Amino acid sequence: MIKTLVYVPGEGIKEGVPFGNIKEFVDKDSCSIWVDLEEPTEDNFKILADIFNLHPLAIEDAKTKFNLPKIDEHVGYLFIVWHDLLGSSGLDKMETAEVDIFLGKNFFVTVHDRKMKNLDLIFDHCKQAPDFMSRGAEWVLHHLLDVMVDGDFLLVDRISNEVDELEDRIFEVPTQENLKELFLYKRQLITIRKIAAPQREIISVLLRHETFIERHAYIYFQDVADHLIRIVDSVDTARDVISGAMDIYLSNVSNRMNEVMKKLTIVATIFIPLTLITGIYGMNFKNMPELYWTYGYFIVLIVMVSFVFGVFIYFKSKRW
Amino acid sequence: MIKTLVYVPGEGIKEGVPFGNIKEFVDKDSCSIWVDLEEPTEDNFKILADIFNLHPLAIEDAKTKFNLPKIDEHVGYLFIVWHDLLGSSGLDKMETAEVDIFLGKNFFVTVHDRKMKNLDLIFDHCKQAPDFMSRGAEWVLHHLLDVMVDGDFLLVDRISNEVDELEDRIFEVPTQENLKELFLYKRQLITIRKIAAPQREIISVLLRHETFIERHAYIYFQDVADHLIRIVDSVDTARDVISGAMDIYLSNVSNRMNEVMKKLTIVATIFIPLTLITGIYGMNFKNMPELYWTYGYFIVLIVMVSFVFGVFIYFKSKRW
Amino acid sequence: MIKTLVYVPGEGIKEGVPFGNIKEFVDKDSCSIWVDLEEPTEDNFKILADIFNLHPLAIEDAKTKFNLPKIDEHVGYLFIVWHDLLGSSGLDKMETAEVDIFLGKNFFVTVHDRKMKNLDLIFDHCKQAPDFMSRGAEWVLHHLLDVMVDGDFLLVDRISNEVDELEDRIFEVPTQENLKELFLYKRQLITIRKIAAPQREIISVLLRHETFIERHAYIYFQDVADHLIRIVDSVDTARDVISGAMDIYLSNVSNRMNEVMKKLTIVATIFIPLTLITGIYGMNFKNMPELYWTYGYFIVLIVMVSFVFGVFIYFKSKRW
Amino acid sequence: MIKTLVYVPGEGIKEGVPFGNIKEFVDKDSCSIWVDLEEPTEDNFKILADIFNLHPLAIEDAKTKFNLPKIDEHVGYLFIVWHDLLGSSGLDKMETAEVDIFLGKNFFVTVHDRKMKNLDLIFDHCKQAPDFMSRGAEWVLHHLLDVMVDGDFLLVDRISNEVDELEDRIFEVPTQENLKELFLYKRQLITIRKIAAPQREIISVLLRHETFIERHAYIYFQDVADHLIRIVDSVDTARDVISGAMDIYLSNVSNRMNEVMKKLTIVATIFIPLTLITGIYGMNFKNMPELYWTYGYFIVLIVMVSFVFGVFIYFKSKRW
Amino acid sequence: MIKTLVYVPGEGIKEGVPFGNIKEFVDKDSCSIWVDLEEPTEDNFKILADIFNLHPLAIEDAKTKFNLPKIDEHVGYLFIVWHDLLGSSGLDKMETAEVDIFLGKNFFVTVHDRKMKNLDLIFDHCKQAPDFMSRGAEWVLHHLLDVMVDGDFLLVDRISNEVDELEDRIFEVPTQENLKELFLYKRQLITIRKIAAPQREIISVLLRHETFIERHAYIYFQDVADHLIRIVDSVDTARDVISGAMDIYLSNVSNRMNEVMKKLTIVATIFIPLTLITGIYGMNFKNMPELYWTYGYFIVLIVMVSFVFGVFIYFKSKRW
Repeated sequence: MIKTLVYVPGEGIKEGVPFGNIKEFVDKDSCSIWVDLEEPTEDNFKILADIFNLHPLAIEDAKTKFNLPKIDEHVGYLFIVWHDLLGSSGLDKMETAEVDIFLGKNFFVTVHDRKMKNLDLIFDHCKQAPDFMSRGAEWVLHHLLDVMVDGDFLLVDRISNEVDELEDRIFEVPTQENLKELFLYKRQLITIRKIAAPQREIISVLLRHETFIERHAYIYFQDVADHLIRIVDSVDTARDVISGAMDIYLSNVSNRMNEVMKKLTIVATIFIPLTLITGIYGMNFKNMPELYWTYGYFIVLIVMVSFVFGVFIYFKSKRW
Repeated sequence: MIKTLVYVPGEGIKEGVPFGNIKEFVDKDSCSIWVDLEEPTEDNFKILADIFNLHPLAIEDAKTKFNLPKIDEHVGYLFIVWHDLLGSSGLDKMETAEVDIFLGKNFFVTVHDRKMKNLDLIFDHCKQAPDFMSRGAEWVLHHLLDVMVDGDFLLVDRISNEVDELEDRIFEVPTQENLKELFLYKRQLITIRKIAAPQREIISVLLRHETFIERHAYIYFQDVADHLIRIVDSVDTARDVISGAMDIYLSNVSNRMNEVMKKLTIVATIFIPLTLITGIYGMNFKNMPELYWTYGYFIVLIVMVSFVFGVFIYFKSKRW
Repeated sequence: MIKTLVYVPGEGIKEGVPFGNIKEFVDKDSCSIWVDLEEPTEDNFKILADIFNLHPLAIEDAKTKFNLPKIDEHVGYLFIVWHDLLGSSGLDKMETAEVDIFLGKNFFVTVHDRKMKNLDLIFDHCKQAPDFMSRGAEWVLHHLLDVMVDGDFLLVDRISNEVDELEDRIFEVPTQENLKELFLYKRQLITIRKIAAPQREIISVLLRHETFIERHAYIYFQDVADHLIRIVDSVDTARDVISGAMDIYLSNVSNRMNEVMKKLTIVATIFIPLTLITGIYGMNFKNMPELYWTYGYFIVLIVMVSFVFGVFIYFKSKRW
Repeated sequence: MIKTLVYVPGEGIKEGVPFGNIKEFVDKDSCSIWVDLEEPTEDNFKILADIFNLHPLAIEDAKTKFNLPKIDEHVGYLFIVWHDLLGSSGLDKMETAEVDIFLGKNFFVTVHDRKMKNLDLIFDHCKQAPDFMSRGAEWVLHHLLDVMVDGDFLLVDRISNEVDELEDRIFEVPTQENLKELFLYKRQLITIRKIAAPQREIISVLLRHETFIERHAYIYFQDVADHLIRIVDSVDTARDVISGAMDIYLSNVSNRMNEVMKKLTIVATIFIPLTLITGIYGMNFKNMPELYWTYGYFIVLIVMVSFVFGVFIYFKSKRW
Repeated sequence: MIKTLVYVPGEGIKEGVPFGNIKEFVDKDSCSIWVDLEEPTEDNFKILADIFNLHPLAIEDAKTKFNLPKIDEHVGYLFIVWHDLLGSSGLDKMETAEVDIFLGKNFFVTVHDRKMKNLDLIFDHCKQAPDFMSRGAEWVLHHLLDVMVDGDFLLVDRISNEVDELEDRIFEVPTQENLKELFLYKRQLITIRKIAAPQREIISVLLRHETFIERHAYIYFQDVADHLIRIVDSVDTARDVISGAMDIYLSNVSNRMNEVMKKLTIVATIFIPLTLITGIYGMNFKNMPELYWTYGYFIVLIVMVSFVFGVFIYFKSKRW
């Protein structure tokens, strides 16, 4: 699906200019063009390359699915791969949507495979704001990145809070389920960090290109970079919390094991010797004098009770 | 709540100048202004931006809660996010108070959400010291940072000592409670480190701005940076101690487990075979010659005692 | 085995020029030569050194088997050691094939010990494409590296997917076999990373040599470097997944051990005391009043059942 | 306690010049002054600041106890915090003595809280060597650092050897005591490393100050830095040894646990079933035909012995 | 023991020139001198310092035993500490031989405490090759380093192979002996890495000294550096293999422990309840109706067998 938006000075925003007719506006520096391609076809790519004069390798990259954000610097335009975190249902893997961006002096092309809510939002906003479009493609880019990064920030914040709560719960009663949740959050956080860290680099590279980004916009892109730094930092803090919680969990498991073993040992140390005694007097030898003593049975019972007390006192003195 | 302090050369300190009237002093370079906003309203921010001509993004940052200190360099002023460690009741999470600072050539604005004792202290001091205010906004900033960092230093020192004591205790008798305390201290130390390390960077950035910081004040800011280095170092040392203590704890747990298992094994190895013997002579077969021997019972008893000695000697020789 | 390919402007591609006759084309800058040596003999090397005027140390290196890729800069040519991942049958060690490359202004020499499918592919392509050969040796090099790196990429992708699946399986039912597979994949990934990371460096070094690589080819080599970065990144992600899966496995093992121990302790705590009771009433003392009670046996049975319930309730209340 | 030493060209060494009279020599560049303050009073500091024109912050630092060495560059002098390792009685914490040094063009001030043998040694040497004092303050500094670092070196060497021996012992018979010793050595080594690493940096900074250190002395300070590098390296090697020894210990503990468990399991697997058999024939049922067989008892004994052999062979075949 | 070798242009190699007479050749730039001192005496050092005008600190260093290679740059000569790996008998500590080298424009001095085969080899070679000596001291140095590094390379290769085999064996049957071997190899590898890594640095420093190393020799020294890189890389790979093998071993130990515990638990869960049953019917109560049932005994036997089957099915269903 192709959506186009062209700002022509004096004429305002033109929506839905046929893809093939875009070319005539490209050479007019005062125009501002946004072409959005969702699930583009091979043909679309060919026309796209033709209109904006894009390098075959850049087109190739736009067709490829990338795991990591990147920026390539071409003559006349920049090619940016950016990822939007889509969140996750519960504790599943973090899903991301990739958008490939071509940023020229007066054009802004977005290529993506799945519907992206944030992108549609900005597109609708631009439609109704000729003033905004007139400021140039870099302001549209900033707006898009800003909205996406803000969404990421909320997501990371939510995960951080849940991890904090989880840590507290593990401090109280560590269960195997808590541990699994920890691992799943960790997996999500790793995904986020892998994307947010290079995104910050991309902003730095962007700011080196005065042709595409006007001076006035610098502080705004810097602001996005700041948000990314805070995201990375929150992720790192959350991972510290997770690894601390895992240490707590593991030390707790071995402690509980210790307790279990102690109980077993106490039970065995008390009852096995007693059973031996009963075994002795359960033997059928004809000549066992004790068996014929009047109080033999009671003496044995007393001996056994004394033994239990003795072992108890022994273990108490050893602070078991 | 808004508090203002204006030093006018020749007239001394004016306290409580209405917020709206501050603007007239801003353009006079020889004046020195301190505006302190506690829990500021939206309106306050608007007036603030207007008076000191602050960038919308800086105002936006001043409204936001940050986890980490940072410094932003704007035209005409610096924006600093600083955190004061409030200590913690017992072993809870370390609490921090954030203060956002605008430092201009002749003005000093502090924005914070909760009452800050250290800040009030400096404010009261400035009120009574026109000489001090007359030296410029950077000296007020130094004074504020110095007091806060000194407080942090004492806090870290206290934690370090407690961690050292804890390590000694774990060397003696490692308990699960000691381990929990270690984790809690570690959590506090991580919080401190996260704040102190970037604060040091902030001082370095500050010293690059000759417009705002006069040469003469350099060595004093350097002194604050030195304190921060020592804080970070103390934190690192304490974390080393903690991780050493955790190693001791864990190796101790597995040792004790070993001991417990050995005891259980010794008990089982001694008593289970003996029980078998008594079981054998407890069987009811009609034809069991031993049962009719005169000394059968006593021979069995002797065999059993010999067995116990044998096992004992065996385990001794294996150094159990 | 020696294969040669010479492009002479105006005459097109000449295949199978005898090794000894190559020398006459070397000095003609407009020619383009590819010499491929498979399992070269000492003699071959001598002739090779003579034809292209190669340094003895470079020849020495071409004879040596290297574990890591490298690039050496000589006067008049570059010497490159490159490795092609051959994949692995199942989970065995990752096999690699080494190809040593001499890249001059107008010649391209490949030396290798085993048959290399990718290399033959490119060789056959060049044979039929005089236009391609005419562009220069660096384009042949790019083509070769591109094909090899693309193959590596598919390989890494396959391993990544298998590791992901393995992780899921370990989350469900961790078995010792899964763990072994993890270790084997890890070994393969380490091999890949050891090769891919320096290969990226080699591309960077290549791009510093304007004599050998024409400006126009830069973006194409950069594209290969991009692929290598993605390979390294995929490997790192897969290793993160593996180490996460190992943590899951290990925590699971200690959990299961805990469960086993608990079961053993419960069994022992319930049955050993009961056995003691039966032992007591199995003793043969003449004077044991309980034995003669009418309901003695039934009382004992009731006591034993009550005990079992008591222990059950106790363990339940402790959430075992 | 204050000790002074002044070298006046032509007059030689003057010992014990009253503290108040030192000032008259300071301005004479050809003089060479050493003032040593042990446990200085507030008054001493005031006079000191006055005589050598020291900055209040430097004086403040001289009063403070530092954990780490540092160097501050002031106008007219350098301020150095250095630590001498005092060794340790047995395995206690490593003790250090701090000496604060002011190094000017022609003066050398040492401030310390406890008696320092090494310092007294150099002081006594200087007293009797006017030639040495005449070369300048930097040579005195070098001499002092050299002696202290040499002492540290011997200390680290001794610890390294003890750690090596300990490793060998742990390889033979790992005991809990050995592990504790390891931890204690590790603690000492961490302390040493924390001090030696920044001391090396201090020498580097020193060598940047041509005003205070004459060219000719460079190689001598470099020699001290070399010693510090070797100290840091020895510490790192020793820590590697320690962490290796800890791995050995821990793997050994789990191995021994394994052995203990195996023994227990073997004992249980052999004797518990046998006890069951005796239990069966110890039951008092009237109708138990086997009991009346002539060889019933002997058959049971043979069955039991066979069982023992069977289990033995089973465990052997499993290589327990 | 002192050995000397002097090349005089036109006269060839002179062997055994008395130590005292060396000085006359030093000033002739066209001469080439090699002095080899084995276990030198104090006197030797004094004469050496005198002949080549060596700095006291360099002489001091030549007397000292170093753990790490290093290079010092003096006026007129370089001082190099190099270590030759002597291999190890079996798995003992890796032994190294230290050689201290003074490299001047036309002289080459080697000082060492133990006989060094490699050095004698080169010495003998030089004796018979006046051409070689005539090229200059740096070529002798290169030759010596090359031979020593080649030896190290073979050594590392052998260890790598043994570690690989060990890993395979641990995959099959992990034993405590295998683990010990791993630790011993690791210790050897750490020693090698500690020496090889700084040796590479030394080559880099050497190449910065155009006075001592002629341009033409650069590529040869670079070749030695390449070998050192490959040694370091092989060591790192081997250490990766070792740490992977240790993970395998440890996970295997806990798995086996798990298996042992399961076996014990199964034995206990099956036999202890059965023993209880026999205990019950072994009690001597007069009034126990079951005892008088005709088939009581057989019913109990059937119950017991059913119980065994029940537990079996239970454990099977739990996949034990």
